[in-house]
Order: sequence, then structure tokens, then C-alpha cells
Amino acid sequence: MRIQTLTIVGVGLIGGSIGLAAKRRGVAERVIGAGRNSASLERARALGAVDEALLDLSTAVHQADVAVFCTPVDRVVEQVLGTASGCKAGALLTDAGSTKEQIVRGIETRLPRGVAFVGSHPLAGSEKRGPEHADADLFQGRLTIITRTAQTDPTALERTAGFWQALGSHVRIMSPQEHDWTLALTSHLPHLVAAALADILPTEAYPLTATGFRDTTRVAAGDPALWTAIFGHNRHAVLSALVRFEEKLAGFRKTLEAGDWTSLQNLLSHAKKVRDALGN
Amino acid sequence: MRIQTLTIVGVGLIGGSIGLAAKRRGVAERVIGAGRNSASLERARALGAVDEALLDLSTAVHQADVAVFCTPVDRVVEQVLGTASGCKAGALLTDAGSTKEQIVRGIETRLPRGVAFVGSHPLAGSEKRGPEHADADLFQGRLTIITRTAQTDPTALERTAGFWQALGSHVRIMSPQEHDWTLALTSHLPHLVAAALADILPTEAYPLTATGFRDTTRVAAGDPALWTAIFGHNRHAVLSALVRFEEKLAGFRKTLEAGDWTSLQNLLSHAKKVRDALGN
Repeated sequence: MRIQTLTIVGVGLIGGSIGLAAKRRGVAERVIGAGRNSASLERARALGAVDEALLDLSTAVHQADVAVFCTPVDRVVEQVLGTASGCKAGALLTDAGSTKEQIVRGIETRLPRGVAFVGSHPLAGSEKRGPEHADADLFQGRLTIITRTAQTDPTALERTAGFWQALGSHVRIMSPQEHDWTLALTSHLPHLVAAALADILPTEAYPLTATGFRDTTRVAAGDPALWTAIFGHNRHAVLSALVRFEEKLAGFRKTLEAGDWTSLQNLLSHAKKVRDALGN
Repeated sequence: MRIQTLTIVGVGLIGGSIGLAAKRRGVAERVIGAGRNSASLERARALGAVDEALLDLSTAVHQADVAVFCTPVDRVVEQVLGTASGCKAGALLTDAGSTKEQIVRGIETRLPRGVAFVGSHPLAGSEKRGPEHADADLFQGRLTIITRTAQTDPTALERTAGFWQALGSHVRIMSPQEHDWTLALTSHLPHLVAAALADILPTEAYPLTATGFRDTTRVAAGDPALWTAIFGHNRHAVLSALVRFEEKLAGFRKTLEAGDWTSLQNLLSHAKKVRDALGN
């Protein structure tokens, strides 16, 4: 895959890593970064993640053959719809958001002719933010989910898959709904749980935390506004996952209350089997 | 601190690391490893974590100037009491268990004259097991809690502190109760929570887990029997921590149910502040 002009909207950790990977791998001739924060854009340019930095979204997106929106999930729809009408014929627009149903539903039937949108979510990143944490190998060997609906153009889907593969990622196609319900369990619920654990830690216990507590709560350092938007988008699936989790936790509590160590050990053994299967 | 003969009962990750650190730092003239598993003992000897390996606990402990019991928390009391009577005059016994109240209470008033026990818990280690994961620097810069009660001999307490400091650790003195109630929040509850998260993950979601899920559930790979024993020892404090956690989680659920994004973001912001304060 060879893109003439790649525009990245939002050059933080993910957007910056896309730029670095695209340039390192010769995926794009020219990379334009766009965003509202000129200091962050300038850092991305200095780091070589983008060739040009523009504060005006439309100017940046209208030059693109491929544009990737790496902005908070509650901003993607308005940004795509706000810039789509001036796009080049054949332009492919995609995103990197952690939720897919509201984004894809909000965009795909409202695009002008000749402009395609396919939802994407690279399962990479961390609790860190900003282009200074960008990494050209962030997507290497990771999975990117791309979404297909009845409206999705097959050629655009294939180009989107090719784009992420060119950055080093594997791809998997799912419906936006299936994505959101699965990610509720694998990402959004763990974030809530980590935050709740951190929230009940009294100050005097801070020095007594070791790697176990730090690993278990690491994601809670993520940006609160970004995560609130994710929970807003995926509210029903997250609530359903949370209720399931609360029931499981109540099961653990009952074994402790009853001193039923056999059942507790069985629960821990099943958890170990699951965790061992995931690798490091 | 210079120990003539150091005996380590249980040469897994922790016991093996004590042996490596003691030899590397010249803390002990001779290190004896004792345990029931001859293959594991032999690996520890081959790795240089112990000089001699003995399957007979009493023979090993009776030669010790200092003996450290690095066995599951539900075995420490019987092992200490079963070997204490033949110990050298002035022998110092300690342990490395994740719970302290039941261990210290079970031992300290039942020792023969001239033999002292002080409870210890190095906040180091991981979900891995076995001497092949031992690390001479495991305690470097970490915290070891040592316990003091009305019965604790001040000289023995000082020697125990000096021992862990000689291995590179900081030390902090607490009552066994304070240790157990704090560790319920910083270690035991996070383990339960991680296990419950892993327990509800359906097989088809395994490939969609990324670093967030893996960090949050890492400790769930710990040994189920060891952890069941820990929960057995610290049942009341863990139950109390669990109820507090369940209430906090219900608070998160209510914000989602009500669509109260301001309150949710406040909860997430407080969690981020706590997590940021802990560092990596």
C-alpha cells in the first residue's frame, strides 16, 4: 500500500505512532498532522511523526487520500461529517476510537458520494498521552479491529485492512456491535475496576503498594475525559459487563463468608487458567 | 550484618532470591536450602542460590544462625514450631509470608527460650514461581514489613531489620494487624478482583485482550493454593476491603445507569490522581 497524502487528525500517542510507522515503512508519501493544540502538533513534527502540521482540520483532510481520526470518541462523528464534503473523490476516512457503534452509525449513511468511512480500532496504546510517547512499532504484531456493516463498501474495507497491515498490524473484521460488547469485557470494564480499586486506597497505604497493585490499577492513570466519553458511548454493554462482574465478585465473597476454601480455590484456578492462556 | 549459617526453608522465587542476594552481598558465610521438592532444591543449588540442599527441615534449621521460612502461609507456624526446639541458642527465625497476624500469634508465645521469631513480609515477588525466577536484586529498593508486638524481642527485631536491609531492602515496622488490614487493600483484594475479571472472560474474547486487560489481571496467574491460604488467613480484612470495593463499584454503576457523566469523570479523576501518585 502506497498513499500519496495521509492525514492524521489528532497527533497524540496513537496518531503520532501512525505517522512514525507510515513514514518508517514508506506507507505514505506525505503525512499531514492536524489538531487544535499547536504545541502538540509542533512536537509531532519535530519527532518526525508528520511532515506538515495544520491547525485547520478541513484544509488538512481535504488534501488526504487517506485520513485517520485519532481524536476522543465523542468528537469523531462531528469531525468526519464536518470535513467529508470537501474531500477528494475516492478518499478513505477511518478512525482509531475505542468504541465503534455510535461512531459508525453516526457517519456511514451521511457521507457524500465518493467518500468512504470504515471504523477501526487498533488494540494498542497505553495510559500515556502525547506524541512524545509515540512509537513506530506500536502496531507491530498487534490486532486492529475494522468494522463491517450492511452499508460498508467492500473496496474501502479492503483498503482499510491494507492500511493497518502496512503499519504492521493484524486485522480482524467484526460488526460495530460485536466490537463494543467484546471490548466492554476486555477493556472498558477493566478500566472501571482499576479505577474503583485506586479510588478506595487510603493515602497511608500508598507506600505499601507493590507491583501487584500497580499492574492491576495501571490503566486507571488514563485520561478521565477520554474514558468518560468511551463509557458514554458504550454504556449498555459496559453496564451488562459490570453486572456480570458484580455477580462473580459476590460469588467470591460468599466463599470467604462461608469459609468454603474448595470453591474459592476452584474460582482462582479457573482464573489462572484464563490468565495463563493470554501470555504476558 | 554477617551470618555464619543462613537457612532458607522453601527455595522458590522468594527463597531463591534471598539466597542469591545473601551470597552476592556477602551477608552469609554458608546458605542451606531446605524443602520437600528435591528437584527444586537441586535447581536452587545449581543456580548458586544455596550452597547445600537438605530435604530434612530440622537438620537444616538446627544449623542456622538465621532461618527464613519462605513457605505457604498455612505451613509456616507448624514448620517453625516443629523445628524451633533444636535450634542454636540465639537463633533468629523469620518468614516471608503475605499474612502476619495468624503466623505471629501462632508462634511467638510458644518458642523455647533463646530462640526468637519476628514476622517479615518483603513486598516483592510476582505471579511466577520457582528458583529459576529468583533474582539477586529482587529486594533492592523494595520495602519489607517487619512486625512488632508486645512480645517481640527488641534485639531480634533489630537483627531482622538488619537482615533485610543487608539484602537491599528498606524496612518498616508495623503491628501484624495493621499489616494484614493494609495488605488486604493493596494486595489481597486486587488479587480477587483480577481473578474475577479473568473468570468472566469468554474464550472468544481472548484474542481481543491487549495490554490493559493483561496488566489488570496479571496477578491472577498466581498459584491458587497459595492464594487460598492467604485468603484463609486474612479473611476478615479481605471481606471488609471487598465490601468497600463493592460499594465503590456500585457507585460507578449508578453513574452509568443515570448517565451522570460529571460524577463518573470525578471518580475517574480521583483514581487517576491516586494512580499517578504511585509511579510506575
